[in-house]
Amino acid sequence: MVPHLVTALTGPINELEQRLLDSVSSIERWFRLEWMEHTPPFYSAVDIRNAGFKLAPVDTDLFPGGWHNLTAPMLPLAVQAAMAAIEKICPEARNLLLIPENKPQCTFYLSNVAQLQKIFRMAGLNVRVGSIDPAIKKNTTVELPGGETVTLEPVIRKKGGGRGRLGLKDFDPCTILLNNSLSTGVPGILEDIHEQYLLPPLHAAASVRFKSTYFKNYEEVAKRFGKLIGADPWLINPLYEKCGEVDFSKPAGRDCVASNADALFTKIRRKYKEYGITEKPFVVVKPDNSGASGADSGHGRQGMGILTLRDAKDLAALQAVQHPAGNVILQEGVITNERMNSAVAEPVVYMMDRYVVGGFYRIHSDRGTDEVLSAPGSSYVPLAFAESTHLPQPGSKPGASTPNRFYMYGVVARLAMLAASYELEATDPDAQDFD
Amino acid sequence: MVPHLVTALTGPINELEQRLLDSVSSIERWFRLEWMEHTPPFYSAVDIRNAGFKLAPVDTDLFPGGWHNLTAPMLPLAVQAAMAAIEKICPEARNLLLIPENKPQCTFYLSNVAQLQKIFRMAGLNVRVGSIDPAIKKNTTVELPGGETVTLEPVIRKKGGGRGRLGLKDFDPCTILLNNSLSTGVPGILEDIHEQYLLPPLHAAASVRFKSTYFKNYEEVAKRFGKLIGADPWLINPLYEKCGEVDFSKPAGRDCVASNADALFTKIRRKYKEYGITEKPFVVVKPDNSGASGADSGHGRQGMGILTLRDAKDLAALQAVQHPAGNVILQEGVITNERMNSAVAEPVVYMMDRYVVGGFYRIHSDRGTDEVLSAPGSSYVPLAFAESTHLPQPGSKPGASTPNRFYMYGVVARLAMLAASYELEATDPDAQDFD
Repeated sequence: MVPHLVTALTGPINELEQRLLDSVSSIERWFRLEWMEHTPPFYSAVDIRNAGFKLAPVDTDLFPGGWHNLTAPMLPLAVQAAMAAIEKICPEARNLLLIPENKPQCTFYLSNVAQLQKIFRMAGLNVRVGSIDPAIKKNTTVELPGGETVTLEPVIRKKGGGRGRLGLKDFDPCTILLNNSLSTGVPGILEDIHEQYLLPPLHAAASVRFKSTYFKNYEEVAKRFGKLIGADPWLINPLYEKCGEVDFSKPAGRDCVASNADALFTKIRRKYKEYGITEKPFVVVKPDNSGASGADSGHGRQGMGILTLRDAKDLAALQAVQHPAGNVILQEGVITNERMNSAVAEPVVYMMDRYVVGGFYRIHSDRGTDEVLSAPGSSYVPLAFAESTHLPQPGSKPGASTPNRFYMYGVVARLAMLAASYELEATDPDAQDFD
Repeated sequence: MVPHLVTALTGPINELEQRLLDSVSSIERWFRLEWMEHTPPFYSAVDIRNAGFKLAPVDTDLFPGGWHNLTAPMLPLAVQAAMAAIEKICPEARNLLLIPENKPQCTFYLSNVAQLQKIFRMAGLNVRVGSIDPAIKKNTTVELPGGETVTLEPVIRKKGGGRGRLGLKDFDPCTILLNNSLSTGVPGILEDIHEQYLLPPLHAAASVRFKSTYFKNYEEVAKRFGKLIGADPWLINPLYEKCGEVDFSKPAGRDCVASNADALFTKIRRKYKEYGITEKPFVVVKPDNSGASGADSGHGRQGMGILTLRDAKDLAALQAVQHPAGNVILQEGVITNERMNSAVAEPVVYMMDRYVVGGFYRIHSDRGTDEVLSAPGSSYVPLAFAESTHLPQPGSKPGASTPNRFYMYGVVARLAMLAASYELEATDPDAQDFD
């Protein structure tokens, strides 16, 4: 069950791990106090890159798929966390409507839906799956590889006109759980829902999130956390610069990116020198407004991919950008130095409410340490998170213990989730401004 | 990990299991609604007897020991539940004082203390162990079989006179967790604590609980639950009669017990006939006011043991009672028909707050099916609860699936816990009476 990790962690990360282990009770208390002030996302998954000398959350998904990759021993934690989440949001709830992605043919994705359905049933809800896919005009039962089935039912809006309750023909849910990241925008049928709980809220949709907002919040979280445990926040926080609207087809646009890249490279090199890191730094340029999940989709709304700069003067790379205009952010690249056998591996941590409930390694044998692993050809190895994220082993040698490494991943994932919580508060259109 | 169970379950229990599996989401919702109205005990452990045709919780311990018998995979559930419990009671808490039983020599018991300390540390608290044992006059570190240590520190009451805060010399806890069942009464040092949370409350102490109060509440819970799932509550509820103050040395006292026993035997035989059960019924006579944990202690305050009657006319047994006077209850005896290999086995379910977090089988190879297993010579086999109480398998053949049986045990244990919650509300000396 415990994956065999072949990466030896080096200096700064070992110190970080040691500080985390020395501070378990203050860290957990700190999170508890944060969650008194802030509402955790209903559920989330965080991709983490471990460069060996620093860690970074590279994607915080607020509509996580892949729940079926969690192993059976992890499920009770998910069920227990789901019970806690429901109890807070709508304790009297009887019916939950789960709205999946529009992928009625993809049994891999639908296995994830079946798993979520199972978790919320065990947590005490009648769960039905309502599709907003225009192709689903009648109840459609899909058989899954494991022999289970999922029935997709067309979602309807009652009392006509888009203002009534959302549900199925004979099913009136108190709560609607989106497992659809609404990456192409919010469909009308989901707008103006008032009497029912819609989770996550529409302003969490990938299509309306900005990476720069997320990373600004994450930077703040990392700084406060660094202060708590007495560690350099850079060890868990990738540096970034924001460029605003850039037209890559014009020299002025490219120059803006190049000068920001230059400033970023200088900062990174300073940090590398401070810690004696001999790796070659790189910078990634990403569209700002495709949500924080750029690593997952690989393509922003403008269709601009993720661009890797090895040098600030790499103008050829900038000139090659196909889709020229958009807001961009530049971010310190973090390599993935975790490996399982010879394949590059990236941990993904799953959370329900404030709790880490499991995770797995995404591995890709054909990709390099500085490439996106969330791509066709990747595979999944369960982490022993169920046994270990809550259970660091203080006596172990730094860097050597898998449970300790997983505890560290669980902490960083929760920091990433906390940043998302700050972000959603700041971008909530219904929030009252008390300033 | 999954124990090999050799008991084939028979008729009525299979129907009960089927009903539980068919009703998972309504059962879980029902519990959720109950916990909106009632406060679960901070932690608890319930001994269950499975007669093959009926189940009964025979002991609901509100100061559970034995946490070290839970296996590593169960711990994250306990930590998560502890996080949820603390968050509700005292989210800002930094320090927790754990008060153990006065057993400074018993490394078996202290391993349980070390486990609890671990769980609450992981949940975000500084945990120290404060002993109220008069023998502990200075800090005493005890090495445990696993190499861990526990340090017992003498508890002090600050500002003199028994009204100040409870703590250690340099440790001021917000919360005090009793793992001492106060079976010989409440010591003065624990009285009149007002500014700190004392958990469980003093009126949960074994010395002040009455079995008849507990079983009256459990009967109510069982009836309501039976109605919910459409099952006969007798399948999970042992019948009982209360005798009041009985003087066994006088014929009138023995007659009262005999006539109540006669009435109880009649009711039990009627039920056995209804379900076609051919076992020979028996009745246990217990002291009422030694707490609900009579099965655990074996001896009440009056020193009267548990008496087994095979027949209402068994006056010789009544005459043999050594300690003649006290309140007694008579209860339908429930045999333990679970076996592991040839040893009689009894499941024990552990709960933290409202959540089932694990359990084990208590087995005793020298005891009979109608005897108390919680006695010298018993041993422990972990249940696969971590994998299964939340995860029944609806497709399995009734009675055949271990996960399904464990789900059933988890439900009955939670009903027992709910009854304890009702009981503590009813006996709370600080409660306001709104009638």
